[in-house]
Amino acid sequence: MEKIPPPWTLGDLAALFGGDLHGPASFTVQRPAPSGSDDPTGIGFAKNDKYLATAEASNIGALFLAPGLSSKKPSIVVKNPQACFGALLSFSHRPLPLASGIHPTAVIDETASVDPSAFVGAFSVVERGARILAKARVFAHCYVGEGCVLGEGATLFPHAVLYQDVHIGARSIVHSGAILGADGFGYVWDGKQRVKVHQIGSVEVGEDVEIGALTAVDRATAGATVLEDGVKLDNFVQVAHNVRIGEHTVIAAFGGISGSSRLGARNTLAGKVDIVDHVSTADDVTLGGRTAVATNIKEPGVYLGAPAQPALEASKSLIIATKLPELLARIRKLEKEIEGLKK
Amino acid sequence: MEKIPPPWTLGDLAALFGGDLHGPASFTVQRPAPSGSDDPTGIGFAKNDKYLATAEASNIGALFLAPGLSSKKPSIVVKNPQACFGALLSFSHRPLPLASGIHPTAVIDETASVDPSAFVGAFSVVERGARILAKARVFAHCYVGEGCVLGEGATLFPHAVLYQDVHIGARSIVHSGAILGADGFGYVWDGKQRVKVHQIGSVEVGEDVEIGALTAVDRATAGATVLEDGVKLDNFVQVAHNVRIGEHTVIAAFGGISGSSRLGARNTLAGKVDIVDHVSTADDVTLGGRTAVATNIKEPGVYLGAPAQPALEASKSLIIATKLPELLARIRKLEKEIEGLKK
Amino acid sequence: MEKIPPPWTLGDLAALFGGDLHGPASFTVQRPAPSGSDDPTGIGFAKNDKYLATAEASNIGALFLAPGLSSKKPSIVVKNPQACFGALLSFSHRPLPLASGIHPTAVIDETASVDPSAFVGAFSVVERGARILAKARVFAHCYVGEGCVLGEGATLFPHAVLYQDVHIGARSIVHSGAILGADGFGYVWDGKQRVKVHQIGSVEVGEDVEIGALTAVDRATAGATVLEDGVKLDNFVQVAHNVRIGEHTVIAAFGGISGSSRLGARNTLAGKVDIVDHVSTADDVTLGGRTAVATNIKEPGVYLGAPAQPALEASKSLIIATKLPELLARIRKLEKEIEGLKK
Repeated sequence: MEKIPPPWTLGDLAALFGGDLHGPASFTVQRPAPSGSDDPTGIGFAKNDKYLATAEASNIGALFLAPGLSSKKPSIVVKNPQACFGALLSFSHRPLPLASGIHPTAVIDETASVDPSAFVGAFSVVERGARILAKARVFAHCYVGEGCVLGEGATLFPHAVLYQDVHIGARSIVHSGAILGADGFGYVWDGKQRVKVHQIGSVEVGEDVEIGALTAVDRATAGATVLEDGVKLDNFVQVAHNVRIGEHTVIAAFGGISGSSRLGARNTLAGKVDIVDHVSTADDVTLGGRTAVATNIKEPGVYLGAPAQPALEASKSLIIATKLPELLARIRKLEKEIEGLKK
Repeated sequence: MEKIPPPWTLGDLAALFGGDLHGPASFTVQRPAPSGSDDPTGIGFAKNDKYLATAEASNIGALFLAPGLSSKKPSIVVKNPQACFGALLSFSHRPLPLASGIHPTAVIDETASVDPSAFVGAFSVVERGARILAKARVFAHCYVGEGCVLGEGATLFPHAVLYQDVHIGARSIVHSGAILGADGFGYVWDGKQRVKVHQIGSVEVGEDVEIGALTAVDRATAGATVLEDGVKLDNFVQVAHNVRIGEHTVIAAFGGISGSSRLGARNTLAGKVDIVDHVSTADDVTLGGRTAVATNIKEPGVYLGAPAQPALEASKSLIIATKLPELLARIRKLEKEIEGLKK
Repeated sequence: MEKIPPPWTLGDLAALFGGDLHGPASFTVQRPAPSGSDDPTGIGFAKNDKYLATAEASNIGALFLAPGLSSKKPSIVVKNPQACFGALLSFSHRPLPLASGIHPTAVIDETASVDPSAFVGAFSVVERGARILAKARVFAHCYVGEGCVLGEGATLFPHAVLYQDVHIGARSIVHSGAILGADGFGYVWDGKQRVKVHQIGSVEVGEDVEIGALTAVDRATAGATVLEDGVKLDNFVQVAHNVRIGEHTVIAAFGGISGSSRLGARNTLAGKVDIVDHVSTADDVTLGGRTAVATNIKEPGVYLGAPAQPALEASKSLIIATKLPELLARIRKLEKEIEGLKK
């Protein structure tokens, strides 16, 4: 879809998205805005009655509505109001500024290569033998270590750090403060102290991956730590050495994936999930918030709890766990009654 | 209170804080020090018998004591010994050095403005249209993105990163490695892959806010992610897109506030608390360590557990949860007795 | 042991490690590799049948085997195959590049001292009175604050940040994005707002310590936050103000050590362990994943759960906690039976 910059008239938006206009075609909106915001020149969306109530109680200017909903505000009824809203987000998106070419302050090793169509920002360092491919963008203060490769159209936001031998696929995005390729956490106790196990492996990041701010992906002890195509990591995710994460898997904040574990494709991990070391999950597994996986999960499905169980079972246990005083009282009552009966 | 630099005599301190001196007025101390430290030129404090016992067992030189306590060490009895100790901390505080003006290595976009009374450290980058207001301090290696505003007297410690459209209120402090304004975590599955939902909103930080090291505050999808005045975030806090945190709320390390949730004013969140998305809390709510909030909390009070319950109920459940083998044994015994009675 | 760079023949390796060669002495391997990797020029190891099965199913070229194991692949039987593998990791280890001396872009305060044998990378800042001792390595983009000391042979990887008065012992390693010396999290509520308690203490890091990427060690309020010799911290560890961590203690990712707590020597903390403030642990304590320590642990041993209990008891409770619906059903059955008996 062609990107049409703001402002937009409702008439234009109704035509663009093929929706039914309720209100003046000339009504003009400046930006997509949350449905509950007091922004009279914003347009929000309501996909159900709950969203609609929030919107009606606010001063938002106009709305995309799902079929069957109606508002006293100017509105456009469309099949998928959230998708129309997403399109306006995309039209309004303004990338962080970055001048083309190599900033004069950047330090590029003479054996590194930077494609003429790539961007390297102020104070970035590109080490020995690293390669920055076409249209890749390296913002300010990045460190691109020896032998790293940044794929076509990939992005390192300010303060991203790649140690050695980190390979980033095309169009992948690494947010600020993410650290890729630091040493895996391995020591051997020799009777007196811990001796470091040297970590010589790499990090392999596929295409269309996004890595959140302040997320860490450690290099492998030997071999590679792998994020397959389409993986999305939130902020504060820990991916330990030799982990492999299957394609299109998503991990929310504070997820901890321990050494040598493997997640299948299209897994969804809610916040603060833990995977112990050397276990695996099947494809299409969903793990609820704070789930702890300690043994292999071999079947697709939704799991929850610590240790992980099928979600239905786990949620029963979790609910009862909040009612333990009642359970105890019932046991006490039974004990008294038994005593009574025994007399 | 006027800042009086060390060293101090006990006579001076007794006069300054209006306390009762027990010991030589000429006894000189160099610094405030923990009560249990072996620092004969340090002065600590004891607000109760427990602190006093720790202090007496150490070589600390002198003490501020609460009324009713006495020590064999030189001491000053005052109403609030901790506050006197805090005043000495303040007198001893030595800010990180930062030369006035703009460091010659800093890269400031020509459309950005830096107040003549502000400081910008080595290797910092200030992008298009950003504004650094009076007496604001930007330490080394910071990134101040397009359209950001750093309020009067606000501070960015080394390696703070602001993406676009991050507005920091007066006197607020952002510690090293904090990332404000990175993209919120939003995708739509199109049947084959996750498509990024563009994040075009801002981050609005009030006045007198403090943001810990390595904490992340994501920009809003549309609209703003908001930290109101006086909010204090510890290290490793995750604030997702479109969250609003009420004034004077405090969040300890590893707190995770999911998308579009709203915390009331004067909330206190202990370590590793989670708030799921789209929920809210009332004002004056306290959440114990590891509490998980999954539904709105409408009443002030203390809550605990996962899911959150009033703390008294929750702590009963948590205690019983550590005694489940005993519960099981009692059930087994009951079962046997019933079998006996049925015969 | 002398470092022998790859490639290696199996004959050479058998001689070097004193092992029994099974296969051609001239078979050449290029690198240590995970036992399950399809790397025909790699050598892995198998210490038991499980590892051996993984290796046999892969295309790895050769193996170190524990006594009693045999493979159809070229192999060397040795007492400790993992140690031989570790030796090859060490032989293959290639440090991040860093030119000797001070990079011309680095900004060194005139009152700071850098040993002629030390390294300071591009864009690093060394502040007033800081000292970089012999053979210490400061990679690019580091900030070494006022009065810091970096010990002999110590390393700051790119983007490490030391605030003021952080002292790092000999041979210690600080990974990228680690922040040492930020303010401890302390405020006093004055009835209207939280007033900052100034933090004036230091951070003291012993010798042979390793601090993971994106880990935070806050400075003390007064006195020092201390990591004793040989401490190893993973990524995302939070060490609050005035904590002391005993020698050779290891803390895995997302460990949170609250203010003024003290861990004994040789503790092992698995992932996401929490220690509340002002408690202590004995020497030789092991804490399982997600353990929460709320009171002093006075005896060595293995603990688990929240709150922490001896691991055997805790694991019984944790298992029963996943079977609460069954417990409830048994209680219900008892209640019915009692009702029947009472009639």
